[in-house]
Amino acid sequence: MMNNTMRRASIPVFFLFLLACSSLPTKSFRPFQPLPPQPPIPADNPQTADKVRLGKQLFFDPRLAADGVTTCNSCHNLALGGDNDQAVSTGAGGGVGRRNPPTLWNVAFNTIYSWDGRATSLEALLAEHLLDPTAMGMPSEHSVTQRLTGIPGYRQQFAAVFSDTDAGVSYADITRALSAFLRTLVTVNSPFDRYLAGDKDAVTEQVLDGFNEYIEVGCASCHFWVNFAGPVPGLAFQMGEGFYELFPNHPGSEYEKRYALAEDIGRYQVTGIETDKRMWRVSTLRNIAVTAPYFHNGSVNSLEEAVRIMASVQLKVQLTERQVADMVTFLNSLTGEFPPIELPVLPATAGKTALQPEL
Amino acid sequence: MMNNTMRRASIPVFFLFLLACSSLPTKSFRPFQPLPPQPPIPADNPQTADKVRLGKQLFFDPRLAADGVTTCNSCHNLALGGDNDQAVSTGAGGGVGRRNPPTLWNVAFNTIYSWDGRATSLEALLAEHLLDPTAMGMPSEHSVTQRLTGIPGYRQQFAAVFSDTDAGVSYADITRALSAFLRTLVTVNSPFDRYLAGDKDAVTEQVLDGFNEYIEVGCASCHFWVNFAGPVPGLAFQMGEGFYELFPNHPGSEYEKRYALAEDIGRYQVTGIETDKRMWRVSTLRNIAVTAPYFHNGSVNSLEEAVRIMASVQLKVQLTERQVADMVTFLNSLTGEFPPIELPVLPATAGKTALQPEL
Repeated sequence: MMNNTMRRASIPVFFLFLLACSSLPTKSFRPFQPLPPQPPIPADNPQTADKVRLGKQLFFDPRLAADGVTTCNSCHNLALGGDNDQAVSTGAGGGVGRRNPPTLWNVAFNTIYSWDGRATSLEALLAEHLLDPTAMGMPSEHSVTQRLTGIPGYRQQFAAVFSDTDAGVSYADITRALSAFLRTLVTVNSPFDRYLAGDKDAVTEQVLDGFNEYIEVGCASCHFWVNFAGPVPGLAFQMGEGFYELFPNHPGSEYEKRYALAEDIGRYQVTGIETDKRMWRVSTLRNIAVTAPYFHNGSVNSLEEAVRIMASVQLKVQLTERQVADMVTFLNSLTGEFPPIELPVLPATAGKTALQPEL
Repeated sequence: MMNNTMRRASIPVFFLFLLACSSLPTKSFRPFQPLPPQPPIPADNPQTADKVRLGKQLFFDPRLAADGVTTCNSCHNLALGGDNDQAVSTGAGGGVGRRNPPTLWNVAFNTIYSWDGRATSLEALLAEHLLDPTAMGMPSEHSVTQRLTGIPGYRQQFAAVFSDTDAGVSYADITRALSAFLRTLVTVNSPFDRYLAGDKDAVTEQVLDGFNEYIEVGCASCHFWVNFAGPVPGLAFQMGEGFYELFPNHPGSEYEKRYALAEDIGRYQVTGIETDKRMWRVSTLRNIAVTAPYFHNGSVNSLEEAVRIMASVQLKVQLTERQVADMVTFLNSLTGEFPPIELPVLPATAGKTALQPEL
């Protein structure tokens, strides 16, 4: 147990450590900040209320999936922390993915997308996701645009929002509308955010103990900044294209075997670069307490165990059960406020289904 | 084309016909009425705001399904007319059903539930649905109650709403909460309801032409009363336990072969009674224009074709294309107002999934 002065002191200590590691301009940089209510918005896809409304419809629309049942919300369930409780995704074509669907809350504060960082924009990842057999499973871009073009309410909205012609909805614009909706998914005001904003009563002593242990053990070397997932271009300095960590950093452990942590070798499969073997995007810790199971393969069911594993395989630290409990209490304080979402009324196809003629 | 006097006159003519057929007390009976804002509520499951709120959570909760992804809303999508565009249901265990998921909007105005009327209460049907491999697919009642008991937010709510003990959530109470939510799903104020309420400008001339043809051809013999699906106990006289029609009434048609209409022999499979062969619950026509595809097997994709088929195989009437267009226009006027639904925030299991230990 440390006193409050020591607790607060540990942030600057970590800050100096970070400075030494990064050698980057840091004039106004604070490694932990309350989550801003708005994520960075790309210049080529500005937010508008109509675009967001359209994107929300698409997000909840099963007609965007090969099976006519799956929606984006099936795996990334906004009622359930932004993911679901499954270990790995089940796609609309019955395809079973290898990786755990991450939460979409606060996703727009990421710099790179998907576990292996293979997309540098939400739009790019969505363009892939709609056709991925382990996600929406549509057979082709044309099949997607054809379906939506067959729904008069979508034709009209795409024409109004993007000036798409009445003859057809553009595939790129579908990804733009969906991305615009995802950029509204922000959970501000977690207890720890309120603490960072100056409300010293927003968290318990145990949260602060856990936070200090989190820093001292070294977790914060990767999990810092607004999304507890590294730097965010446009909001802070940039580290190349994205921010990755080697996982497991110390290979060959019992944990690695038990949970098959090294079977999937991560980013190497995207780049073919030797040093990208076992490299993974640093994941957000926001809402981590409500987004079990854990890790890229969803193999670990409990946050306690996930904390033990990370300390061990990344930092070669064997945590005491007291430290684990403190850190989990801290991580619980990162659960934000989930703003209410009204289910959209989806545009109908009067007197017929949108799924036929069959693809 | 008929004039307005004849149009209005045709309702009493049909009413007299109905009187002759039924020989039931009909003092205050009008065969068509605006949809009431509240359906009948059973005495043993009174509505309360907390119960409805709990039921809504369950409706949208994938942890109530074997696969952890499917929800009630997957097949009965409230954003999409209360069903989905699939011909038949796909269950949480990958089981494919034989029948088309009906809309749940206004379901509480029905007298019997499921296509073959095998349940006489929503509660009874839900008790079955949760375990049906082509629906939620849970392996046993115990597996359902165990899952929900493992979620603290549910334990607390069931204790508050039903006085369930902290040790466990009762299976019957799960069906009660879900049913209470379903009884809030009412779409009032369709154009035709506004017409019935006295607003003569609420519908076009073609709607009234279609309505008169609908009565004259004989559709209204079954599809009458508040839900266009026959009598509702508690709101009007009762016809035995439920209200069924023989379908196809005139067997052996080309339509029957093309759409496999007689392969599934309906209620007989529930009762084993010879005269129940090809007997089916009379379905609501409310929101019919936004709930394609049609019939118990979902084999017919267009409302025009469904109207042609019904006139032919039920009433041996070959409709003109003009009659079909008029009737479809009338049926379109039965699409009500879908009240906004806020997606619930589901109770979390902090730091773990609710799906483990595995069933």
